[in-house]
Amino acid sequence: MGTRAGIVVTGTEVLTGRVIDRNGPWLAEQLRQLGVDVGHVVVVGDRTEDLQAALTFLTGTGVGLIITSGGLGPTADDLTAEVVGSFQGRPSAPDPALERRIADIVERLMARRGWKADPEATAAGVRKQAQVPAGATVLAPVGTAPGLVVPPAEGRTGPTVLVLPGPPAELQGMWTAAVTSEPVERAIAGREELRQQTVRLWGTLEAQLAATMREHEAELAGLEITTCLREGELEIVTRFAPSAQPAYDRFGALLAETYGDTLFSTGPTLDDLVAQGFAARGLTVATAESCTGGLLAGRLTERAGSSEWVLGGVVAYANSAKKELLDVPAAVLEEHGAVSAEVAVALADGARARFGADVGVGITGVAGPGGGTAEKPVGTVHICVAGPDGRQARALRLPGSRRVVRDRSVTMAMHLLRAMLVGGPPA
Amino acid sequence: MGTRAGIVVTGTEVLTGRVIDRNGPWLAEQLRQLGVDVGHVVVVGDRTEDLQAALTFLTGTGVGLIITSGGLGPTADDLTAEVVGSFQGRPSAPDPALERRIADIVERLMARRGWKADPEATAAGVRKQAQVPAGATVLAPVGTAPGLVVPPAEGRTGPTVLVLPGPPAELQGMWTAAVTSEPVERAIAGREELRQQTVRLWGTLEAQLAATMREHEAELAGLEITTCLREGELEIVTRFAPSAQPAYDRFGALLAETYGDTLFSTGPTLDDLVAQGFAARGLTVATAESCTGGLLAGRLTERAGSSEWVLGGVVAYANSAKKELLDVPAAVLEEHGAVSAEVAVALADGARARFGADVGVGITGVAGPGGGTAEKPVGTVHICVAGPDGRQARALRLPGSRRVVRDRSVTMAMHLLRAMLVGGPPA
Repeated sequence: MGTRAGIVVTGTEVLTGRVIDRNGPWLAEQLRQLGVDVGHVVVVGDRTEDLQAALTFLTGTGVGLIITSGGLGPTADDLTAEVVGSFQGRPSAPDPALERRIADIVERLMARRGWKADPEATAAGVRKQAQVPAGATVLAPVGTAPGLVVPPAEGRTGPTVLVLPGPPAELQGMWTAAVTSEPVERAIAGREELRQQTVRLWGTLEAQLAATMREHEAELAGLEITTCLREGELEIVTRFAPSAQPAYDRFGALLAETYGDTLFSTGPTLDDLVAQGFAARGLTVATAESCTGGLLAGRLTERAGSSEWVLGGVVAYANSAKKELLDVPAAVLEEHGAVSAEVAVALADGARARFGADVGVGITGVAGPGGGTAEKPVGTVHICVAGPDGRQARALRLPGSRRVVRDRSVTMAMHLLRAMLVGGPPA
Repeated sequence: MGTRAGIVVTGTEVLTGRVIDRNGPWLAEQLRQLGVDVGHVVVVGDRTEDLQAALTFLTGTGVGLIITSGGLGPTADDLTAEVVGSFQGRPSAPDPALERRIADIVERLMARRGWKADPEATAAGVRKQAQVPAGATVLAPVGTAPGLVVPPAEGRTGPTVLVLPGPPAELQGMWTAAVTSEPVERAIAGREELRQQTVRLWGTLEAQLAATMREHEAELAGLEITTCLREGELEIVTRFAPSAQPAYDRFGALLAETYGDTLFSTGPTLDDLVAQGFAARGLTVATAESCTGGLLAGRLTERAGSSEWVLGGVVAYANSAKKELLDVPAAVLEEHGAVSAEVAVALADGARARFGADVGVGITGVAGPGGGTAEKPVGTVHICVAGPDGRQARALRLPGSRRVVRDRSVTMAMHLLRAMLVGGPPA
């Protein structure tokens, strides 16, 4: 493979999980699209020696480029720029033009909030953010922090370090300027096309797939295949050089042949398929959720343009809400209980009727950890999708935590919608 | 500080962001509670040499324990156990008792799905999962994969490696057995108590806090302070040895004094405060959401027991739904438009009345990327909370993507609820 890169995500808040890192994966995917391979993402707290160790490690793996995210703020725990500068043998000094620019941004931010800043104290923070390693390329701030491209000092070898801010919007906003800067282009000059293909199965066990792959091992040379089981979906991602395209074509055909009854996508995600299905068929949808508490509506409205097909939904936690807002008959609730196949049907029908939608989805269940009974233990969930051509329903017994039960229920509802809208294997 | 540990998260699907890692942060927090400090989490793809490099790196940082997650499945890309075994100088061999146990589990799983397995092919996967490095301690499987504790071979020095499965439920289910196993206890014997305190500000700029901390730098010795700005909340987390408690007490008092108008918590999260507020005051709530599409209802119902106070909600994307399910007057919609302060009030009142709730929340806005106008650009959001003692409303102009606008709107609604329920600084 061609050029490799390493990623360092800084911040004690990321290391300890108070913030979920979105930068490492985002950067890895951007680099992959450029044909740059990533072997490691190192998450490191706000400590000088730990950051130095991470830089030393990645340099030792032979990468041509290291990208850091975070640690460019005004507080003392933000130390990336200085550490990278000294790691590359380029001592930092304040850049007066940059200092004025950042001071302007901070002043505007404070004025907008009606803050009166202590000018001297604020100036110290600004001065810190305007420190630039000698000979580094400055990337214009998107927020308050600039980006930096820091090659090794003259006469040294090693990777170029691209220093980016932590807030994802700032990092992403700076990306194009970063990768088109001369020193970064030079660092990834050896990149080569790396193709990636994805196949998604719904209802195949990983052990079964492993057996198939073992049988056909000899034919899979040149393919880097990774499989991942997530919420019942088995995702098979294959990366390969263009020369291995024939091998991939054979592998793809093998999967289609062996798993025709569970293969629901050769690319698009479940959410893509559902959105495309609604758009292409011109149908509208409304939801009626109990245990999932609005998560299905939230997921359906995640993408831009979803107001074209999502009319709305009702979260009916209380039984009174099920009756009054969704016309679930009191007799059905009494006879079968709120968690029942019959109530799921009534919820789907009620959502459809109340919103005047083409498709209605009803979900009712016991998400736990409390509320379970011998007959209806935690994880019991009933889902119904009612559409112009009839209804499809599922009764589930899901293992796992409250969060897992809620998420998996939403995913099952999405598969019922997918099967109704675009066909493919049953949900 | 006492004992340190390092974490290796394996899996190309994690490295490339197809799966968000929950194990690294979870493990780091568990270790912190035990008094074990974590300096690095390394995310690594499913490649032997990359995993070896990560183990070598962490060993070099002087840790006493390395924990790996993932790579214990039946497919060929799952290679952690074998790589760790050879790294520690302990060659792997099949464990017949473990092999029978895993075979039983796989057979049960397949039977449950009505699969007919090719026994020979499945057996190969089971045999792979039952490979145990010589002298390693086996932790009983929670799913199909066992955990392993692998000390360095006799006569070698270096950290003990604890090998755990990737699925979070399996990893967490194995944790107690893992940390109470003799070789892990020995590896973290030097641990020392490390205290952690959190202060949360809503509406203070990071630059302002940085200035305060710089002024008082001399008094903060012995405190490891990290600050993190997330969705408008400034979170200040401080870790310290018991001997630095007086220094922390002074720092806490300083924050309370300087930021009395924005300090809303000295521990609990925003969601904790809202849940505690509803429970303590015996009030119920219902939501009426447009641009947030159910995310507020989903967030309010995230925790167990929330059905005590959440009656439900309506996602009213279509104007017809606003009128028919929430009684928003047609005249108000026509005069002010769906995105307006007046409609937010009508939504809050409508949710309150329709669900018979004590508190109603209305949210309407332009989440983007389309739908903005000169007068109401993308990011324009109106929120109203109506309760027994009156209404509180906010008009926002939020920068950022569709996702950011939706999430930030929900957070602002949560702050309005927090201020109404438990007081503290205004939202």
